[in-house]
Amino acid sequence: MRSRFTARQRAVVAIIGIIALLAAACSSDSDDSDSSANGSAGSDEIIEARGFSADDVTAALKTYQPSGTHDDYMMFASGGHGGQVLVIGMPSMRLLRVIGVFTPEPWQGWGYGEVGQKEIFAEGSEGLEEELTWGDTHHPALSETGGDYDGEFLFINDKANARIATIDLRDFETKQIVKNPIAVNDHGGSFVTPDSEWVIEGGQYGAPLGGEYADLDSYESDYRGMVTVWKFDREAGRIDPDASFAMELPPYWQDLCDAGKLVSEGWIFCNSFNVEMATGLDPDDPDNTEVFEAGASAGENDYMHVINLEAAAEVAANGGTTDINGFPVIPLDTSIQEELLYFLPEPKSPHGVDVTPGGEYMVVSGKLDPHVTIYSFEKVMAAIEAGGFDTDEFGVPVLAFDDVVEAQVEVGLGPLHTQFDDNGYAYTSLFLDSAVARWSLGGPYRDDGWKLEGTIEVHYNIGHLAAAEGDTVSPDGGYLVALNKWSSERFAKVGPLLPQNFQLIDISEEGPDMQLLYDMPIGIGEPHYAQIIKADKLDPWEIYPEVGFDPGKMEVDPDAPKVGEEGVTRDGNNVTIDMTLVRSHFTPERVEIKEGDHVTWNLTNIEQSLDATHGFSLPGYNINLSLEPGETATVEFDAVDSGVFSYYCSEFCSALHLEMVGYMLVEPQDG
Amino acid sequence: MRSRFTARQRAVVAIIGIIALLAAACSSDSDDSDSSANGSAGSDEIIEARGFSADDVTAALKTYQPSGTHDDYMMFASGGHGGQVLVIGMPSMRLLRVIGVFTPEPWQGWGYGEVGQKEIFAEGSEGLEEELTWGDTHHPALSETGGDYDGEFLFINDKANARIATIDLRDFETKQIVKNPIAVNDHGGSFVTPDSEWVIEGGQYGAPLGGEYADLDSYESDYRGMVTVWKFDREAGRIDPDASFAMELPPYWQDLCDAGKLVSEGWIFCNSFNVEMATGLDPDDPDNTEVFEAGASAGENDYMHVINLEAAAEVAANGGTTDINGFPVIPLDTSIQEELLYFLPEPKSPHGVDVTPGGEYMVVSGKLDPHVTIYSFEKVMAAIEAGGFDTDEFGVPVLAFDDVVEAQVEVGLGPLHTQFDDNGYAYTSLFLDSAVARWSLGGPYRDDGWKLEGTIEVHYNIGHLAAAEGDTVSPDGGYLVALNKWSSERFAKVGPLLPQNFQLIDISEEGPDMQLLYDMPIGIGEPHYAQIIKADKLDPWEIYPEVGFDPGKMEVDPDAPKVGEEGVTRDGNNVTIDMTLVRSHFTPERVEIKEGDHVTWNLTNIEQSLDATHGFSLPGYNINLSLEPGETATVEFDAVDSGVFSYYCSEFCSALHLEMVGYMLVEPQDG
Repeated sequence: MRSRFTARQRAVVAIIGIIALLAAACSSDSDDSDSSANGSAGSDEIIEARGFSADDVTAALKTYQPSGTHDDYMMFASGGHGGQVLVIGMPSMRLLRVIGVFTPEPWQGWGYGEVGQKEIFAEGSEGLEEELTWGDTHHPALSETGGDYDGEFLFINDKANARIATIDLRDFETKQIVKNPIAVNDHGGSFVTPDSEWVIEGGQYGAPLGGEYADLDSYESDYRGMVTVWKFDREAGRIDPDASFAMELPPYWQDLCDAGKLVSEGWIFCNSFNVEMATGLDPDDPDNTEVFEAGASAGENDYMHVINLEAAAEVAANGGTTDINGFPVIPLDTSIQEELLYFLPEPKSPHGVDVTPGGEYMVVSGKLDPHVTIYSFEKVMAAIEAGGFDTDEFGVPVLAFDDVVEAQVEVGLGPLHTQFDDNGYAYTSLFLDSAVARWSLGGPYRDDGWKLEGTIEVHYNIGHLAAAEGDTVSPDGGYLVALNKWSSERFAKVGPLLPQNFQLIDISEEGPDMQLLYDMPIGIGEPHYAQIIKADKLDPWEIYPEVGFDPGKMEVDPDAPKVGEEGVTRDGNNVTIDMTLVRSHFTPERVEIKEGDHVTWNLTNIEQSLDATHGFSLPGYNINLSLEPGETATVEFDAVDSGVFSYYCSEFCSALHLEMVGYMLVEPQDG
Repeated sequence: MRSRFTARQRAVVAIIGIIALLAAACSSDSDDSDSSANGSAGSDEIIEARGFSADDVTAALKTYQPSGTHDDYMMFASGGHGGQVLVIGMPSMRLLRVIGVFTPEPWQGWGYGEVGQKEIFAEGSEGLEEELTWGDTHHPALSETGGDYDGEFLFINDKANARIATIDLRDFETKQIVKNPIAVNDHGGSFVTPDSEWVIEGGQYGAPLGGEYADLDSYESDYRGMVTVWKFDREAGRIDPDASFAMELPPYWQDLCDAGKLVSEGWIFCNSFNVEMATGLDPDDPDNTEVFEAGASAGENDYMHVINLEAAAEVAANGGTTDINGFPVIPLDTSIQEELLYFLPEPKSPHGVDVTPGGEYMVVSGKLDPHVTIYSFEKVMAAIEAGGFDTDEFGVPVLAFDDVVEAQVEVGLGPLHTQFDDNGYAYTSLFLDSAVARWSLGGPYRDDGWKLEGTIEVHYNIGHLAAAEGDTVSPDGGYLVALNKWSSERFAKVGPLLPQNFQLIDISEEGPDMQLLYDMPIGIGEPHYAQIIKADKLDPWEIYPEVGFDPGKMEVDPDAPKVGEEGVTRDGNNVTIDMTLVRSHFTPERVEIKEGDHVTWNLTNIEQSLDATHGFSLPGYNINLSLEPGETATVEFDAVDSGVFSYYCSEFCSALHLEMVGYMLVEPQDG
C-alpha cells in the first residue's frame, strides 16, 4: 500500500483541499485563520504554510514524540574522531546522551581530575610516551546473550590507536580502556560473539607487531596484520587482558569482522583489503608510482578471513602462542598448521562482512563491484572438509570462490554494509549511488530470494547503515538509519565543517517501497557505525543504588565521606578533605591549605533523588566533577597555585544553586 | 483562536473519527490499513496508533523539518560545564553543530595539536600553573549593530575561570580566549553593548583582585567584586585586552549584566547577591553558623549596579585606573567620586537584569519574591540628578527604591529571567513553579500593561529562557525556548546523569495561551543561556575562500604547502613536512624520521568542494586535525616514540577513504 502522493510538487497542491476537512472538524474557529505556520492555526493552515507533501505529514506524525513520551528504540552510534558514543532516541532522532569514552568530557566529569578515571586513561595509553586524550570510535557492539542484545554492556573501538573500551549500561559510563599491545591501529572492532565471551578487534593498516620499527621496503617480511580476541568477564564487567590473545595474519589490511551465530557459532569472519600489499608512493623508488588508493585497489580480489575461533582459543589456552609485548599471539604458521584460518576470495576493497540472522550466510560487498556477494557457511565447511586448496604466498589456504559462493545480487554502485530485517530482507548501503538497496534473502528466509526489491535515495554519501536489532539473530525490522557522511546543503549553514546526516527510513512494509522519515544532523563527531536496541531491553539505574557508591568499582566505597564526618585533615604536606554535597551546600564550605600541599579530596553526593546531580568545579586547577545521586569520587592534586579559589556546584541543582559555593584558600609558602 | 482539544484524554477520542476523513482522501487503499504507526499507514492510523492529541498533531506539523529544508532560526546555547557552544536549528530543535571553545574536541580538530590553537589555549591559561582544558560556558552574546544581532561574532564566558572567548561566525570557530587578569571566576558575561564596542563580563564570587591570597576573616577589607569591559576590535575580529579595563566593586557577588540600549545606551546594569557578605560556615567560629545558601539570603535586598559606562571609559582612557596584574582597574573610590556607579535596591537573590527593547526599563526578579520588578531608566536618571542619596558601607550611592521603580507584577514562584517579544509581552521563567509567565509591558508597549497574561507549564526546573531575538531592540516573537535544568522522567532512561530539556513554545498568538511544541533533550553539556537569531542573518563560509587559508589568522598563509612542493626536509634534528591532502591521498605517503627529531608538519587541504573535509589522525601522538576545504594547519611535536605510525584521514571523504593513509616511520636512536 502506497500513498498516492509521492512527489512533493503534486502533493502540496492536492493535499490542501483534502486537509481542509480535517481543519474544519478540528478547529471551531477555522474561519479566523491566517497563513502562519505558527500560533493556533489548524493543521491545514500549517501544512499549507509550510508547503508539506502528504509524505511530509506522515513522516512528521511518525517521528514526533509528544512531551513526556519515550522513544521505542535507542541507537548507540560511534562518535568517530570525537572519541565518544552518541545515544539517540528513535523514532524522534533526538540525542539523549553523549557518553565520554576516549576523550575527556567535563559536563559528565569524565577525565577532569577523578583518580579512578585517570587510571583508565593511563591504562589506555600503556606503552606510549604520550597520554592519549582522544580516539576514533568506529564500531559499537552491544553485549549479546544467545545472539540477541541483552542491554548490559557496550564495547567500542578506537581505530586511531587500537583500543577497546567497555561501557556499563547500568550507568552509561566507561569503565575500562584496553590498549592493544601489538597493534598501532584497528578497524575491525568491536564485534561480540553471541554470548559476549569474546570481543573481536580486527586490524587495519599493516605494521610490525608490537610497535617495532621496520622499513617499508621489508613490508612483506616484517609487517603483519592481526586479529585480537579479548575475553570478556561479564561478572567483573571488564575485558580480561590476561585471558585474551591475538592471531598473527599476513600484512593485508584486515578490516571489519563479524561473529558467526547459530549454525556458524564458534567461527569469525573478517574481510581485508590491500592484498596487493601496496606501500604507498615512494619518491625515491621509480618502480613504486602508485598512491595507496590505486595500489591497494589494483588486484581483482581481496580475502575474507575465515577463522575457527573455538579451535584458536584452544590453541591459545594450550600455549600455542608466542609472546609479543607480553601478549600471547598465535603465529601465522601455527594457524595454518592447526587449520584455524582460511581465505575466501572476495570482490576487491570490501568494507565489512555481515552474517545473516540464522548464521547461514556471510554477505560481503566489494566497494568497486555493484553486487553483494553471499557466501554459504555450509559450503565453506564442505570445501574445508574436501581439502585440496591453493594457498596465498604466506601459505594460508584459499578456498575456491565457486565452491563457497551462494549468490550474487546486483544492488548498485559502491555497496558497503548490509543489515537485516524481520521480513527476510537485507539492506545494503550504496556509497556511490547515495542510496539504500533492499534485497531479498533466499532460503530459509524467502522463496523469492536473492533479488533486488527496491532502492531509496539518501542524502548523501552513505557509509554504514543500522536497522533495528539488524545484526542479531532476530532483527526487529521497522526502522533503518542511513549514516550519511556528507550533508552538503541539507541543513542551514554552520561554516565549512558540516554536520553528518542520519536519515531515518521506514522499512516496515514489504515490497519495493521505503519511506524517508527524518534528517538528523550530527553536529558532534563523525559516526561510523551504530546499533539500535529496543529501549525496553535497557534497564539503567536512575540513581546509584546506595549513597557512597563508587562508579569505578561499581560498589559502595566504605571510606566515602559521610554526613557528620566531613572535614579537613593534615598529615605533613598531605591534606585530605572529606566533603558531602546536598542541595544547596558543600560541607565544608572553607578549605584552608598551603601552597605545595598534596591534596586528596573525597566527595560524596548524598542525594537520593532522581536528577539531583551536583557538579564540583575548582577554578584554576582544571578540575570538574559530575556527582550523580549517591556517587562518591576522589580527586588528587598538588596545590601549585596560591590564592583564593571559589569552588562551586556546576550543575544547576536548586533555586539557591548559585549559593552552593565554598572557598579553597591556598596560603603562599612565603606568606 | 484556540484548538478546542486541549486535554489529551478528550482529544485522542475525538480526533480519531475526524481524521478518518483525511485518511480516506489521502490514501487510495485505506481499507488495507492496520494499526501500525509505521509503514504506509494513513495519518489517521498513525495518530490513533500513537495516541496523539490535536495539539500533538499541530505540534508535530509545526516543528517537523522535511528533508533538505532549512530551519528558520538558529539558537546559540552555552554548553555549560561541557565548555562548548551548541548550535540548534529551530523550530526542528536539531543540534546542527557543537563549537569547541574551552574544551578540546577532536572531531573538529580543536586543540589536538595545531600550533595556533595551542597558543589560544595558552593565552586562556595565562597566569596559572595548570593549563585549562575545560570551561563552564554560561552566557553567549551575539555581536550587535544598532542593538540588533548582526550575525558576525559570538562571545561566550567561562564562569569557572573568568574567561571570554571570541567565535567568528564566518567559520564558526573559536579565535581567542582571554583570561581575566584580576578575577578567579565570573558570571555576568558575556553581554555586548548595542554596537559591540564593549563585551561586558560581570563578576561572581568575591575574591582578592589579581589572584592574591587573603583570609576570609578579612573579607570586607580584602575581597572585592568587579566588572570588566573588554574592548572589541571588530575589524581584527578580536577583543583587545590593551584597550580594556575593569572596575573595582564591593565584595558583593556580582552576577548577570545587561547593556542599556537606545534611550539608555551608554549605561550598563549588573545585579548582585550576597550583599550580606556571608563567608560560609566556619567550623572554628561559633558566631558564623550559616551556610552560604542561608547567609547570602538573609537580608531583604541586594543591589542592582547602575554604571555609566561611557563616563567610565573616559576615566579609564584618562588614566584614572590602578594597575592590577598589568590590567587597568578603576578603584571603587574613583567610581564613587566620578559618579560612575549607583545602586538600586532589588528583591533579594536576583539572577539577571533585562533591559526592555526600547531601553526604557530594567526588569529584575528576586528569586525569592513572586514579582518581577520593573525600574524606569528615566526615573533613575532623575533620581541621580536630584541627588541626596544614602550610601552603602563602601560609600556607593543607593537610590531610593520608590523613586526608581515603575511597576511590580506578580508572576509566580522563583522568577528568574525575562525576555521579550514583538507584541509588547515579556516572558519570565519561574524556577519553583516550573512555568513561564507571559506578562504585558506598559507604555510605550501596551495600553493594558504591567499585568500577568498567562502561564504555561514546563518540565522541569526552568533556568533561563530565550525568545527569538528576544533581547534585542526588535524582538521577533513567535518562538520561545525554556531551558529546563532537570528532565527527570521526560526521556528514556540513560543512567543517573540525565539530559536537560529545552522546550520549544509557540508564543505567536496574543492573549493568555501558549503552546508547548517540542521537548529537546540536551545530552551533552548543561546549557545556561541562549540567544536565537534569524538564520538568514548568518552568512557563514561554505568553504575557506582560498586554498592555503589559515583560520587562526583568517587570511591566506603564503607558506602553506602547495601541490608540487610537498616533501620532507631536514635541518639538524628539525624536520619539516609539507603535505597536501585531496581525495583520496596524502602527499607524501611516506615520512621517514628519527627518534628525537623535532617535527613541524604543515598540511593543506587543497579541496574546494563543499563538505570535502579531510582529517589527519596520527596514532600514538595524540594528534588529530580537521582540515576543511582550503584550510592549512601546522602541528609540531617531538618524535618521542619510535616505530611505525600509519596516519590516515579520519573524516570519511570518498569511496576510497580507507585507502587515504600514509606511514610515518620513526627510526629508533639506537637503530
